[in-house]
Amino acid sequence: MNKVKIKSPANIAFIKYWGQRNKKLFLPYNDSFSMNLSLCYTILEIEKKEDPKIQRLYIKDYEKSKFEIKIDDSFKKVVSFYYRAKQFLKVKKDYGFIIYSYNSFPKKAGIASSASFFSALALGFSWLFEKKLNQKNLSILARLSGSGSSCRSIPDGFSWWYKGKKSSDSFAVSIAPPSYWNLLDIVLILNKKGKKVSSFEGHQKAETSNLFKYRLLSLEKRLKEIKNAFLKKDFTHFGYFLEEDTISMHSVMMTQKPPLFYWSGKTLEVIKKIIELRQKGLEGYFTIDAGENIHLICQKKDKEKFLNFFKTQKEILQVITNYPTVGTKFI
Amino acid sequence: MNKVKIKSPANIAFIKYWGQRNKKLFLPYNDSFSMNLSLCYTILEIEKKEDPKIQRLYIKDYEKSKFEIKIDDSFKKVVSFYYRAKQFLKVKKDYGFIIYSYNSFPKKAGIASSASFFSALALGFSWLFEKKLNQKNLSILARLSGSGSSCRSIPDGFSWWYKGKKSSDSFAVSIAPPSYWNLLDIVLILNKKGKKVSSFEGHQKAETSNLFKYRLLSLEKRLKEIKNAFLKKDFTHFGYFLEEDTISMHSVMMTQKPPLFYWSGKTLEVIKKIIELRQKGLEGYFTIDAGENIHLICQKKDKEKFLNFFKTQKEILQVITNYPTVGTKFI
Repeated sequence: MNKVKIKSPANIAFIKYWGQRNKKLFLPYNDSFSMNLSLCYTILEIEKKEDPKIQRLYIKDYEKSKFEIKIDDSFKKVVSFYYRAKQFLKVKKDYGFIIYSYNSFPKKAGIASSASFFSALALGFSWLFEKKLNQKNLSILARLSGSGSSCRSIPDGFSWWYKGKKSSDSFAVSIAPPSYWNLLDIVLILNKKGKKVSSFEGHQKAETSNLFKYRLLSLEKRLKEIKNAFLKKDFTHFGYFLEEDTISMHSVMMTQKPPLFYWSGKTLEVIKKIIELRQKGLEGYFTIDAGENIHLICQKKDKEKFLNFFKTQKEILQVITNYPTVGTKFI
Repeated sequence: MNKVKIKSPANIAFIKYWGQRNKKLFLPYNDSFSMNLSLCYTILEIEKKEDPKIQRLYIKDYEKSKFEIKIDDSFKKVVSFYYRAKQFLKVKKDYGFIIYSYNSFPKKAGIASSASFFSALALGFSWLFEKKLNQKNLSILARLSGSGSSCRSIPDGFSWWYKGKKSSDSFAVSIAPPSYWNLLDIVLILNKKGKKVSSFEGHQKAETSNLFKYRLLSLEKRLKEIKNAFLKKDFTHFGYFLEEDTISMHSVMMTQKPPLFYWSGKTLEVIKKIIELRQKGLEGYFTIDAGENIHLICQKKDKEKFLNFFKTQKEILQVITNYPTVGTKFI
């Protein structure tokens, strides 16, 4: 077998990862917590070549009909991950590779496209180098891709990424399978264009915000509280803490140097509508990554009501209704 | 003389007042710091009546042509302030009063209309009760109106409100006269309608945000830093800290129970434009009170450039260009 196919989900963080305490090992300042998304995924095919000079990356973007060869930054990131993976796996021999990757959702829009891609690639490179990793080490390898949150896409369902004390204990584990809780992430796409500042760059500057250290202090309580709410399936408290974390992270971003405002006017208007609906009894909570799109977290029983409402909102270009799903797998 | 006329400015806080550690005495959790606004003011006329049963309040709102009698909440607040003022001033005798008040700017729009009104009224009631107060006690009396930030409108120019340990040492003083620094507050009016939740109600709920205590922790450094920047007239650092404080306060508001989102989509779009201008070399900083309108803080030398830019922005319905000005005075 000289090629394999892998499917890996994006994930939505309820408690966010922002800022790296170690920028070479991609170690985070805090634990984070996420859910894998059933309809936002990467399908990655990797072909092994004996000639190590062959290094090719083809990507078919969402809404494009053809694979295109990449020689830009994304290709450079893949190549540098190849060498980090080789080192991590303690392999001497080099291999060539041809990668075909396809995303089921718009890139650079606050849905972790790099997480689904690099988690898939972590499994792909471990196969390329003929190493069978356990889930822990696969998660560590994914983290070393540089897209830290990709380590949360490896395990099934709901993932907790322990910040760890060193590289070997900073990885994600599943704290509940997909079937544990009928939560939905309805992604509300407000803009299909990419964002101006990638989360990769923004991460590097987290510490330039004076509010960052207070975010970390506030996280101690929030991490405990949201885990409790999750274990009790207490949706109201769960929702409260996930919104709090979003606002905490974005207040850090907005006070970085230079300031990062990922929210657009539309983002804010839709946030307000979600709060209004909630005050009228339809319970959903928003979370927002490094982009202007909104993730509406709700319970399955309310799915149709939300979808009917969103249909009537002109700001919302597209919705993607995600259930919790399994992690990175060969298919 | 049975009537007097008073003029008192609104003020814009660079470091905000949000949350009351004592809700009866209106004592704040933190020091705050502001500038009086030359073109946003209240003109208040108060007439003394020997018959204490006469208690009347007439208000001419911005954009209205006539004074209208008020019997709503604003009237109730005036009457309850009357009794608090009487108690504070240790007066036995009651007087009747007729008040005519006019605002030079839209109410309930994130410009402290209650600050200019209640600071004027503090001076008005001290006159009514025939007490000549020094500035410190006038500032304390204004604070006791319930609109705490009105205490900052009493002194001239740039005011620092010391949170104090008890009621008698929680008042504002001028830390620099209006002429100290050629700063401008260009108020960008995006909406002339009132806000849904008054800042008075929102204040009461500050502690329901888990982020509130971290705001207070972060303020220790910020208060020192902004004072240093002010004393050095270091506009860049001054601006950085005032934006930080706005975002810190709004992140508290957004995580209160219930959440308070004073920003609108327009607010966010204009914030982003201000940051873009700055990145192109036109230096201005935004601050936002409990409303959707924006205060653009800039230096006088850049006034025309900003005004020319704002003219081209469809979101901006009106601008009010304020210089620093004196505090509450008889006219």
